Amino acid sequence: MITLSIIGTGNVAFHLAHAFSTAQGINLQFVAGRNQKSLVDFKEFASTTTTLTKTHKSDVIIIAVSDVVISEICNELEGIDSLIVHTSGSTSIEVLNTLKRYGVFYPLQTFTKSKKLNYSKIPFCIEVKLEGDLSILKSLSESLNAESYAVNSTERAALHLAAVFSNNFSNHILTEAKQLCYDNGVSFNLLKPLLEETIEKAFALGPENSQTGPAKRGDTITIDKQLSALTRTGQRAIYNTLTQSILKHYE
Amino acid sequence: MITLSIIGTGNVAFHLAHAFSTAQGINLQFVAGRNQKSLVDFKEFASTTTTLTKTHKSDVIIIAVSDVVISEICNELEGIDSLIVHTSGSTSIEVLNTLKRYGVFYPLQTFTKSKKLNYSKIPFCIEVKLEGDLSILKSLSESLNAESYAVNSTERAALHLAAVFSNNFSNHILTEAKQLCYDNGVSFNLLKPLLEETIEKAFALGPENSQTGPAKRGDTITIDKQLSALTRTGQRAIYNTLTQSILKHYE
Repeated sequence: MITLSIIGTGNVAFHLAHAFSTAQGINLQFVAGRNQKSLVDFKEFASTTTTLTKTHKSDVIIIAVSDVVISEICNELEGIDSLIVHTSGSTSIEVLNTLKRYGVFYPLQTFTKSKKLNYSKIPFCIEVKLEGDLSILKSLSESLNAESYAVNSTERAALHLAAVFSNNFSNHILTEAKQLCYDNGVSFNLLKPLLEETIEKAFALGPENSQTGPAKRGDTITIDKQLSALTRTGQRAIYNTLTQSILKHYE
Repeated sequence: MITLSIIGTGNVAFHLAHAFSTAQGINLQFVAGRNQKSLVDFKEFASTTTTLTKTHKSDVIIIAVSDVVISEICNELEGIDSLIVHTSGSTSIEVLNTLKRYGVFYPLQTFTKSKKLNYSKIPFCIEVKLEGDLSILKSLSESLNAESYAVNSTERAALHLAAVFSNNFSNHILTEAKQLCYDNGVSFNLLKPLLEETIEKAFALGPENSQTGPAKRGDTITIDKQLSALTRTGQRAIYNTLTQSILKHYE
């Protein structure tokens, strides 16, 4: 049995607390947050506390807070024997280097509080200072039936950046696509099969072998027609940048 | 039984010929192309021909060629009694207005020759000049177990533009994400669960309610760190344009 505490009350903390509260071989002891209000939704998963020292006796402490607050939390945990990990994609393991035992437990997924997740489909990127601690992080991901991958801080930063492109930028493009549909009275839902196929093709054939459309074909007539149909400035900027990039990539 | 011919030898023609060759209630008579070489892959689906007049006796003729060639093909079909439809998202139905009976049969999907498709998951956007012809196009999509939607030329152009954003632009962003992974020695496949969740969330919650990441949070520290980590000019342009657009959208 691994005893565990989580520090933080955001989306990542919420989903990890939810998952670990029912995981085999894990005893989720405390979720710690700034104030009682932020902890309300966590009461069903574990004991909640605003006193960080309560977490000190757990085998593992997961710090799931904003990147800029990690070092501040870290200061309050110095000297204790627990394995302490953060969950940030873009933050080096070294931010924790004043601790005895430390590491990273980064879930490569997008978290929204209201959206249920299949935890077994989250790849965990793990890194530890002391090699002996690797098996503990592996056990944590195994308890969620999830895969884990040993990834160093440089590789993790690259993965996080690739995730920003893949998720953040694609999702914003979908936001603009939905606006286009709305502005013209057509249903955004009609695009769902296209997007499912887009992802399937990107991983089956590779996105570089799946590109289609006017820019890939160098079809400047359609490009000009579509640009003049776009009335929103932000959409024109996105259309221009991506079209130029595709034209250059396949010229 | 509806007799059908297809004019064109590209990816859309290939997939439609493949699908209709085994569809219930459809007799795929001819696939017509410029030359015998382009028709080789179609011989297993139907009789092939380089003589357009052979298609004239079919109940329906599908023109699945590049947008710019549609009117040229149309000239060669004037005066015949078949229902003649094109498959272009961005081309008005009126490009065919010298014909007796005409319409549009636009599959809202991305087609790559080597990638098998689940035809029942393709929404067909249909439009006809003569209302009586609508039921024929409905029957065509039903023969593939696919859904059809009556969509006029303006709506279809908007859907096509939304599809360019959703598929073409997202796919190119994935190409850059894969390059980032490759440049840093990490596996692009680790991003697959993230992307599946991105699409699921976009349609379950709406993309406007699913946005996460540094730009959504206004986290300029991470944004500056990631921009300075990007060494390729094209990636910096995409990062800048999308980040500015997200910042403005959620400010």
